[in-house]
Amino acid sequence: MFKYELEFKVHDYECDLQGIVNNSVYQNYLEHTRHEYLLANNVSFDLLHQQGVDAVVARFEMAYKTPLRSGDEFISKLYVRKDGIKYVFHQTIFRKEDNKVCLKAKVETVVVIDGKLTASHSQLEELIIKTVE
Amino acid sequence: MFKYELEFKVHDYECDLQGIVNNSVYQNYLEHTRHEYLLANNVSFDLLHQQGVDAVVARFEMAYKTPLRSGDEFISKLYVRKDGIKYVFHQTIFRKEDNKVCLKAKVETVVVIDGKLTASHSQLEELIIKTVE
Amino acid sequence: MFKYELEFKVHDYECDLQGIVNNSVYQNYLEHTRHEYLLANNVSFDLLHQQGVDAVVARFEMAYKTPLRSGDEFISKLYVRKDGIKYVFHQTIFRKEDNKVCLKAKVETVVVIDGKLTASHSQLEELIIKTVE
Amino acid sequence: MFKYELEFKVHDYECDLQGIVNNSVYQNYLEHTRHEYLLANNVSFDLLHQQGVDAVVARFEMAYKTPLRSGDEFISKLYVRKDGIKYVFHQTIFRKEDNKVCLKAKVETVVVIDGKLTASHSQLEELIIKTVE
Repeated sequence: MFKYELEFKVHDYECDLQGIVNNSVYQNYLEHTRHEYLLANNVSFDLLHQQGVDAVVARFEMAYKTPLRSGDEFISKLYVRKDGIKYVFHQTIFRKEDNKVCLKAKVETVVVIDGKLTASHSQLEELIIKTVE
Repeated sequence: MFKYELEFKVHDYECDLQGIVNNSVYQNYLEHTRHEYLLANNVSFDLLHQQGVDAVVARFEMAYKTPLRSGDEFISKLYVRKDGIKYVFHQTIFRKEDNKVCLKAKVETVVVIDGKLTASHSQLEELIIKTVE
Repeated sequence: MFKYELEFKVHDYECDLQGIVNNSVYQNYLEHTRHEYLLANNVSFDLLHQQGVDAVVARFEMAYKTPLRSGDEFISKLYVRKDGIKYVFHQTIFRKEDNKVCLKAKVETVVVIDGKLTASHSQLEELIIKTVE
Repeated sequence: MFKYELEFKVHDYECDLQGIVNNSVYQNYLEHTRHEYLLANNVSFDLLHQQGVDAVVARFEMAYKTPLRSGDEFISKLYVRKDGIKYVFHQTIFRKEDNKVCLKAKVETVVVIDGKLTASHSQLEELIIKTVE
């Protein structure tokens, strides 16, 4: 099911006074996974932006299962589906040590070209086609 | 409907290379609003933690409507409801300039005491009662 | 001596597992103070960037005196001097409760226009003149 | 000269509206390198904290040479010296692509045990001895 995975390690400054990774940091992990996935498929988030094309998050859903702590290593996995004009990323983070699910997320993105919502973008469509194959 | 509001201003370091506030930063804004709301009702997130009581986010849902940019001021509002053992925060961020909705979020939290899920916590129950009155 | 001051409050997510504000977060506080100081003098960091003018930090020095904690309020103060081609910001953070010094910093910035180091920038020179008066 | 090195890659959310890594983020990179160096020598920052031992940054000096950008890979290197009661970390970040120096830092830390400044800590002393050998 998953089409891409990336390994990370918790950085101590990402933990808050509860001693666990702060909730908002998971969004950073998930974003970095999406951007690296795109890069691995020759799509650069930064280059797209410079061309006036922005992939923008429209909706975000996260269920927290097991908190990550200082020193934990984890694997961030994803696959992507098209739903109307939305590119929907399904992302799960697994703790490496025991493969326990830390977090499940559904990230709905849309493509905005020069400020206008767009139904599709050729480079992103290719990703979807590859995924279905 | 809203029981609490807090004013913020975007800090430049919160903007990313798209020139808008990075998605994960909104979670920080929302968390700070919840903690200040609790403090305004004499509940300290930090003190609770030191007593072994952690209010933990179990689920998070956000819909992004209008991006905030460098220099923008905004108002973060919330109200809270009980749903089973969950304390559910309903949070909306409004751009101050034109009162446009920037983001709507639903944040489901549970109370964990010494590592065990708990059905209710007296200080948080009081907030709910106040809200319903 | 100080020409500008700005009040802040610690946000819980800025504290790390030691229960104190993470070292790197102070740089954010200092940067925001500089940018607000510039804005108060009609200089926008973001607008300058869009015009190809970047004020870039070349050197940074910080001495940590008293750590800030969850709930602390503090005041960030600054003044600026010219030293050769450098605009040097002298910044101090005071805990509001007892006026104790939390941190002293010296931030050396240079102006880069379209990628080239520049000896001065009219809007920033005005700040220096105002300061000396 | 350097006793430890760690590879990183810039994450897009670490870049600000100038399109380069935000200044404060380098402090995160440097902190993570120090903590990983300690871990590689069986010293855990988190465990030390739980035992009442905190390694605290007292002074920080950074010279920015070449900005890192979206997609850049880099290598963070360090060595450590004792200076009075201070453990001084000398840290340099190199861009991987061309080995250009991005940043040089000198980080002076002291050891605080149960809130009191301490002249030395056995585990950290060992690091110094290893370094001199």
